[in-house]
Amino acid sequence: MSKFDISTANLLSACDARKAIDEGLLSSQELVEACFARIDALEDSIGAWTHLDKELAIQQAREADESRRRGLRVGALHGLPIGIKDIIDTQDYPTELGTVLHQGRKPSKDATLVSLLKEAGAIIMGKTVTTELAVFSPGKTTNPHNNAHTPGGSSSGSAAAVASAMVPLSVGTQTNGSVIRPASFCGIYGFKPSFGRISRHGVLRQSPPLDTAGVFARGLEDLALIADVVMRYDAQDDAMLPIAPPCISSVMAEPVPTNPVFAFVRTPAWDKAEQVTKDGFRELIEAVNESKAKTIDIFDLPAQFDNIYEDHRKVMEADLARNFAEEYTRGKAELSDVLCSMIERGQKVTDEKYNASVATIADYADCLDEIFELYDAILTPATPGPAPKGLQATGDPVMNTIWTFCGTPALNLPILQNEDGLPFGVQLVGEKDDDARLFRTARWLLDSLNDL
Amino acid sequence: MSKFDISTANLLSACDARKAIDEGLLSSQELVEACFARIDALEDSIGAWTHLDKELAIQQAREADESRRRGLRVGALHGLPIGIKDIIDTQDYPTELGTVLHQGRKPSKDATLVSLLKEAGAIIMGKTVTTELAVFSPGKTTNPHNNAHTPGGSSSGSAAAVASAMVPLSVGTQTNGSVIRPASFCGIYGFKPSFGRISRHGVLRQSPPLDTAGVFARGLEDLALIADVVMRYDAQDDAMLPIAPPCISSVMAEPVPTNPVFAFVRTPAWDKAEQVTKDGFRELIEAVNESKAKTIDIFDLPAQFDNIYEDHRKVMEADLARNFAEEYTRGKAELSDVLCSMIERGQKVTDEKYNASVATIADYADCLDEIFELYDAILTPATPGPAPKGLQATGDPVMNTIWTFCGTPALNLPILQNEDGLPFGVQLVGEKDDDARLFRTARWLLDSLNDL
Repeated sequence: MSKFDISTANLLSACDARKAIDEGLLSSQELVEACFARIDALEDSIGAWTHLDKELAIQQAREADESRRRGLRVGALHGLPIGIKDIIDTQDYPTELGTVLHQGRKPSKDATLVSLLKEAGAIIMGKTVTTELAVFSPGKTTNPHNNAHTPGGSSSGSAAAVASAMVPLSVGTQTNGSVIRPASFCGIYGFKPSFGRISRHGVLRQSPPLDTAGVFARGLEDLALIADVVMRYDAQDDAMLPIAPPCISSVMAEPVPTNPVFAFVRTPAWDKAEQVTKDGFRELIEAVNESKAKTIDIFDLPAQFDNIYEDHRKVMEADLARNFAEEYTRGKAELSDVLCSMIERGQKVTDEKYNASVATIADYADCLDEIFELYDAILTPATPGPAPKGLQATGDPVMNTIWTFCGTPALNLPILQNEDGLPFGVQLVGEKDDDARLFRTARWLLDSLNDL
Repeated sequence: MSKFDISTANLLSACDARKAIDEGLLSSQELVEACFARIDALEDSIGAWTHLDKELAIQQAREADESRRRGLRVGALHGLPIGIKDIIDTQDYPTELGTVLHQGRKPSKDATLVSLLKEAGAIIMGKTVTTELAVFSPGKTTNPHNNAHTPGGSSSGSAAAVASAMVPLSVGTQTNGSVIRPASFCGIYGFKPSFGRISRHGVLRQSPPLDTAGVFARGLEDLALIADVVMRYDAQDDAMLPIAPPCISSVMAEPVPTNPVFAFVRTPAWDKAEQVTKDGFRELIEAVNESKAKTIDIFDLPAQFDNIYEDHRKVMEADLARNFAEEYTRGKAELSDVLCSMIERGQKVTDEKYNASVATIADYADCLDEIFELYDAILTPATPGPAPKGLQATGDPVMNTIWTFCGTPALNLPILQNEDGLPFGVQLVGEKDDDARLFRTARWLLDSLNDL
């Protein structure tokens, strides 16, 4: 590990900070204080947090340091600061779901994923800004690369806090594009695991067939570190199956058995991709294909995928109508127009139509299985382009819908940027329930690009 | 690993069976079928089970074998059959709590500890006999070493099933002596962890300051294997703290830093120890002390420990009155006299007295801390002697009360027997929350005895 200045310990990767703490070069308290110094400096312009409690966080860090001094066994995230999206229940902080209708809401228990983070020794720094009920209407957060641009949503604060080095790690959720999109716009790594691999017990229910928790970090190893902690079976979440945890960090460190091959999938949304995205992908694919044996093919999805956006919309909106019925009845006036419209459309989706659209998930997923018989991973844009200007909207999730609907694992690799220096990502999609291989493939791809 | 006959695979240790499955020498289905053959042969005389579902268990085993064939990641207990005490909720089997008052009770969710076992790949074979509401009144189970003797309770079926090689592993609970006592009487290894280290979410609530889940196996490595799976933080259990899992298996494999020293603690209950127990301990201590540098001292507990049985009784009985009020009101006639008497005494314990007794837990535990400043572990009887004759009672938990009340981890080492060949145990007690060191110390002690 290279030397570092303790006052800028917030810039360390999670893995490096963990190592420095292990070796006694850094205390958790010093790390937390460095993160708070960064937050103090930038929060006014970035607005990543809804709830912070410096005293509580430092208290947790002191206890972590004390455990280490006493020689107690420490977990994978021992002493590492983390931000939690404000739709995920925490017993130490309010969880207000991004709407005044839940102002002051204080859960009595941690969500399962928070309890796993705590068991692993993470320091919960506070709650990060979400859009209204994790749908579209933005919170106060701005893009750390340019405050006039959106950070993306709905996990706006979690992405911006990691991108601006306020914390090394954070947690978000995705029902359409809410992890991969803000990761792309903020220029960081984001991971939406296979559907059903992170517990949603204690997480706002938006659409049960779609809701997926995910994680953010500034490097792939960091993403694996936190993913291994939270990807545990929980009987409280009906969508989960009792299968062994994926051990991403160790699989990722293994050499690939053979050079992976990629399907470049433009998706029916390709006409929404900006020119800078099209150029970026062309250069990326040429570069990889020139340097290696042919490893990237263009693969076009069957025509039926044209309908997937409509199926996703029906499922999501019908579920919004169902799950936010209380909010709609009690406080429609306090809800955004965009959410009210979605709820009202959702109210009109019959059970028959809802069930029919849910049933298509398996059909679309079967089509993807055919791709994964031939290819290790799919390359596709993470967003149509870099973060759009303006803070009134969070950008288009159209590049994420297919992968959320099919429940395939997806990574944002923050390797592209436009001429103004605004970042945007390459999305790497893997076979469902083989999250660890997706990381290993991503590692190979990044190494290959570095070798060019 | 030595060769084995697949038809007697039920005799393998959990670790050996796991290894054989890993190496493709044995399938989970073959193992489950061997266990069922053993159950078919012995269940009529031993009566360890309340619910069995051969078809479901074999189906689970087939799925486990299929996962392995497909190269999926497998957990620490992949394909291993396990028995679950019938006060621990399972969604696949009824959970009837040992009383007709709950006949047909069918939980909708697995207890957290069951979900952890499933995640690790264990095959849930069925539910094992508990005494009535996990208190004293026995079920149908007999002692596998002599059917005229009690197996101990309340985790009677879990201990008997492992002792008779129907399954390699099982789970029980202890509120007074319900893990260590049946382990001692049945001649197997038993482990009651530190208080608050296995989730009780989904486990019958008897006395919250005392209830502790525990595990059974026929060897110490097997006990460590399952303990590492179930000792995970769960925010659903208020008694738990988010600390890192102990990693017992790996710590146990480390050499001891220095030869451990033991306190032989006779406890105020020593006059209840049978002569065979007193003789056994004298020989054990002489043998160890002669072979090694002096490693065992006699240590007498301070006089205040004379009161601990009464404090424990007040807490437990008051909690029985509270937590079984519904059963008592609805079906007193169906409850045993012994339980009714306990409930009625418990009803008379005032809140003031209850709180005062609960408050003594910390005082007693502080006294034990002084022992653990000088000694690595406490040696003490697991039971007054071998299993008493008769099936109307489950034996005296008096040797277990102190360690349950103080929340210290305790192991039964099945290394003694009387002249009729009936086994009984040495109880090894460690410092609270250092469960892994207790196992390492136990490993050292067993190795030392083998070297004699």
